[in-house]
Amino acid sequence: MTTEYVHGYSEKEGGRLVDQATTLTELLHYDTVYPAGSLVLEAGCGVGAQTITLARKSPGAAFVSVDISPASLAQATERVGAAGLTNVTFRQGDIFSLPFPPAHFDHVFVCFVLEHLADPGKAMVHLGRVLKSGGSITVIEGDHGSAYFHPESVPARRAVQCLVDLQRQAGGDALIGRRLYPLLVAAGVREVRVSPRMVYVDASRPALVEGFIRKTFTAMVEGAGAEAIRRNMIDAESWGKGIRDLERTAERDGTFCYTFFKAVGVK
Amino acid sequence: MTTEYVHGYSEKEGGRLVDQATTLTELLHYDTVYPAGSLVLEAGCGVGAQTITLARKSPGAAFVSVDISPASLAQATERVGAAGLTNVTFRQGDIFSLPFPPAHFDHVFVCFVLEHLADPGKAMVHLGRVLKSGGSITVIEGDHGSAYFHPESVPARRAVQCLVDLQRQAGGDALIGRRLYPLLVAAGVREVRVSPRMVYVDASRPALVEGFIRKTFTAMVEGAGAEAIRRNMIDAESWGKGIRDLERTAERDGTFCYTFFKAVGVK
Repeated sequence: MTTEYVHGYSEKEGGRLVDQATTLTELLHYDTVYPAGSLVLEAGCGVGAQTITLARKSPGAAFVSVDISPASLAQATERVGAAGLTNVTFRQGDIFSLPFPPAHFDHVFVCFVLEHLADPGKAMVHLGRVLKSGGSITVIEGDHGSAYFHPESVPARRAVQCLVDLQRQAGGDALIGRRLYPLLVAAGVREVRVSPRMVYVDASRPALVEGFIRKTFTAMVEGAGAEAIRRNMIDAESWGKGIRDLERTAERDGTFCYTFFKAVGVK
Repeated sequence: MTTEYVHGYSEKEGGRLVDQATTLTELLHYDTVYPAGSLVLEAGCGVGAQTITLARKSPGAAFVSVDISPASLAQATERVGAAGLTNVTFRQGDIFSLPFPPAHFDHVFVCFVLEHLADPGKAMVHLGRVLKSGGSITVIEGDHGSAYFHPESVPARRAVQCLVDLQRQAGGDALIGRRLYPLLVAAGVREVRVSPRMVYVDASRPALVEGFIRKTFTAMVEGAGAEAIRRNMIDAESWGKGIRDLERTAERDGTFCYTFFKAVGVK
């Protein structure tokens, strides 16, 4: 992972990811519950945004949460400690050379990680190696191409496209959600089932207007502005208009759609 | 409705709409059930694609299904008769000058109609006039901007955009799904709740690969080809590539996403 643009590496981004998990927790994670006594690998835990939810929902399971960044692990450790959770162990490590023996884990969980990798299929193979036969693997990713809104806006679309292009230049794929199925199948995962989790927001859902349109999606796009302008992908004025148009969708007559993809399969 | 491009006016289109309803019936209509004894207006029934489902699911309700086109009504009458349903009456009429007294109906149902209208908000007001106070109004529409797929393809996107542009030139809006909420609220409908119905297709769902990717969406786009080429929106070669790329998404490693929007409110 030699990417310049990776979520969770700045403090503001860290805050956003936690906001996102708080708002979307039920939508993304309600059906992820591990049996008591099982050992679960969370690969690429970042600042622990998902770790707290995972560990709370499966209090009898033991989690080993791995990330390549010591700084992220430090934040994650603090957050999980503050939440009073004792069933998580953190460990520094790289998905492509995991510090565990083969078939070590009962289950594997990966969330918002594959989008950043140049070879997500290879990552899946490495994750499969440390998973027991018959164990489950759960992958959750977004897809920025799934975002659309009312009022429609060309500058807003351009701003989102900058995010997709930045991710691609960094070796990742911001449109990975839609291709989880073929990715997992090609990596040898069996019985793959993908369930899209669509976030639909209108004025009748004020918590999502604030928590998703403003604090999650627009904040994420906004965070890429300096880099997009620096790389001449877009000029500052167009960028500003794009962000204002995204914010505009949070008004009384606006709507917003985004879809996360959750794939579950078996080794 | 002075549109040249309206679904359901050719025999092939009629067949497609019925295919679509057969494949998507449960997804779109499972939660539309009217009490015995209620009188329901189906506005813009077309060739009866939805009428059969509606009437079957609510055998104790009486439906009055209206369309502006006598040819469509003839097909709808035949279909509903062949299905052995006796709780539907057909009537020729225009949504903007409905042949019913005020507050005549207990409920109103509209599906794949507003997308064709230059002033869908005005249509909602006219429909509201013939609805009793406290009665429900249900609106279902697609949104062609909600379509995305893997493998990603610029020609396929262009072909879909031609459909959106044709609809706009005809006075309609193929992106209407996302704006049902503000549309209904502005027309005075109360307690509006929108629930998106996302169709997600991968190789593990063969019925949808055939029924949705091929027979519904790609067939619909294909049906607009001659007109799009005639109007110089796209050249024949690019069009052909776009259609082939849409078909490509139906292969083993392809995926496809499309979202319908269902809005229910109260007068």
